[in-house]
Amino acid sequence: MVQIAVAGSGDSELIPEAERKARTFARALPLDVILLTGGKGGIMEVVSEEFRKRGGTVVGVLPGDEEGNPYSSVRIKTGFNPVGRSVVLVTSADVLVVLGGGSGTMVEALMAYNLGIPVVVLTGTGYRSDELRVLAKDGFFDHRKRAKVAFTERPEEAVELALGLARS
Amino acid sequence: MVQIAVAGSGDSELIPEAERKARTFARALPLDVILLTGGKGGIMEVVSEEFRKRGGTVVGVLPGDEEGNPYSSVRIKTGFNPVGRSVVLVTSADVLVVLGGGSGTMVEALMAYNLGIPVVVLTGTGYRSDELRVLAKDGFFDHRKRAKVAFTERPEEAVELALGLARS
Amino acid sequence: MVQIAVAGSGDSELIPEAERKARTFARALPLDVILLTGGKGGIMEVVSEEFRKRGGTVVGVLPGDEEGNPYSSVRIKTGFNPVGRSVVLVTSADVLVVLGGGSGTMVEALMAYNLGIPVVVLTGTGYRSDELRVLAKDGFFDHRKRAKVAFTERPEEAVELALGLARS
Amino acid sequence: MVQIAVAGSGDSELIPEAERKARTFARALPLDVILLTGGKGGIMEVVSEEFRKRGGTVVGVLPGDEEGNPYSSVRIKTGFNPVGRSVVLVTSADVLVVLGGGSGTMVEALMAYNLGIPVVVLTGTGYRSDELRVLAKDGFFDHRKRAKVAFTERPEEAVELALGLARS
Repeated sequence: MVQIAVAGSGDSELIPEAERKARTFARALPLDVILLTGGKGGIMEVVSEEFRKRGGTVVGVLPGDEEGNPYSSVRIKTGFNPVGRSVVLVTSADVLVVLGGGSGTMVEALMAYNLGIPVVVLTGTGYRSDELRVLAKDGFFDHRKRAKVAFTERPEEAVELALGLARS
Repeated sequence: MVQIAVAGSGDSELIPEAERKARTFARALPLDVILLTGGKGGIMEVVSEEFRKRGGTVVGVLPGDEEGNPYSSVRIKTGFNPVGRSVVLVTSADVLVVLGGGSGTMVEALMAYNLGIPVVVLTGTGYRSDELRVLAKDGFFDHRKRAKVAFTERPEEAVELALGLARS
Repeated sequence: MVQIAVAGSGDSELIPEAERKARTFARALPLDVILLTGGKGGIMEVVSEEFRKRGGTVVGVLPGDEEGNPYSSVRIKTGFNPVGRSVVLVTSADVLVVLGGGSGTMVEALMAYNLGIPVVVLTGTGYRSDELRVLAKDGFFDHRKRAKVAFTERPEEAVELALGLARS
Repeated sequence: MVQIAVAGSGDSELIPEAERKARTFARALPLDVILLTGGKGGIMEVVSEEFRKRGGTVVGVLPGDEEGNPYSSVRIKTGFNPVGRSVVLVTSADVLVVLGGGSGTMVEALMAYNLGIPVVVLTGTGYRSDELRVLAKDGFFDHRKRAKVAFTERPEEAVELALGLARS
């Protein structure tokens, strides 16, 4: 079973283009995948809602002992602060897909790469994570070349890239 | 959805009575429950095997980036040492059921209580965790009375007690 | 440099005998030792106060981003819940000394043993941790015999035992 | 007591310019500061060596139960994977100084910002972290403006900026 984690903004007011792309991503995700999210609002919630509605399994990996959004099938309460919970989320992933967000999202992208887990970055979202492309001019986030980093503007292609890159 | 965590020995050679009770417990567990385990061998594995075989959802909360036993439906790789992973396991639980084990199992029992999560201890397993009853002479693990601790020798009753005590 | 961690009740009103023993322990501790505590009140605070006053280095390993008691020379803010912070405290120790407490204290004793770190339990404190002796009738907390567990009623002897057992 | 954390490459062969700047930074750091590092080699080690040699207190916050480089006065063994240990390191800091590194270093920079802890980035090191300036065109790593991010090419100025920004 492939476990795909998504990273995205927890903002209550999302950039509409980012939200649209995130929903399209979740609708294109095969149902035999396990979706891992940070369990909270914003991009995490809209992706969870779309995937759960279709019958998918959604695991929310939460800070503290929070309940998070109502669409998680399983709630992992890490007891940890938000970036600590990101460690558990990312370490559990076969691949991480960045759907648009700020510093918390970029932390997860760099963490995944640092741990050798491939990353797919969806761009054109209007969020700062679009700039991750600049950090990865050569296709890697640093000189160590620890994992592949792929970029695309199209959410359907992000699904295909993620399935192809998922570590087996 | 109620999330029930189990704690038990990871020994490859189990005390037969403990194994028998653990299998009975897993067969008595309703399928709409989410079963959380430490994801590894021994008691964790036999409970996972029985519950998964019946169609239940099993979440293995693992140390490091281990894969653990083959019966987890979802694998949470905490990146942490064994007792660190226990924090994530226990914090995620609505109730913890102790099925027989040594120090790692007793750590989880006391952690749950310390976090205000009720604990059911199955006794008569032959493992050191049977002695938790001595620590809880008055029905609590200390003077703070943070959560209920129930004891039973019967695995079917452990299921009923767990469902009754699960924090809602 | 030997790193000695202490575990003890965070109660604001301490059992007088436990407080007296904890202060005696801290006054008998050599100054070239690094003292690790959970950084909060109660036993943790009185031990920190005594050792710091004498010029010792005290490291408080705290939950969340708390500041804890005023006697820590260094504050490690783990971002974690109280039992999560205990993992960091205990893993850092060469030996753990239990000075009297409830479930949080006993979690640390069993964690240390589980990780192979020796434990000294000071008894006759009036706290539930005195009962750890029952769990360790044979000198170990379980059948795995992972680390030594020593018991004493005398705080000066607890210092000597700790220095002798500290893993090198 | 101000706690300053540094982030930098663990490479055994450092870019000479980065090493030179890191040593200059450590020599300019006041001795009443507590220096926190990731406890391992490369930039972490050279900074620790310089500061310790001058009599400073160095706390190494390590992954797993590693011992790390020989210059830590205190060793915090987090039991966690490398990025997990970064959570404990960064959460403990009053300010984070980036001295040049790859993905692990950039994770720590973004984590600190995300947690509201100010960041000073030393540039002109030759490492990928120099590009953090592009992510922070407006002086912040995202639209949330959670903490200040300052950039400088001069290690002595990095010390001054860090002392000025340290959260009180």
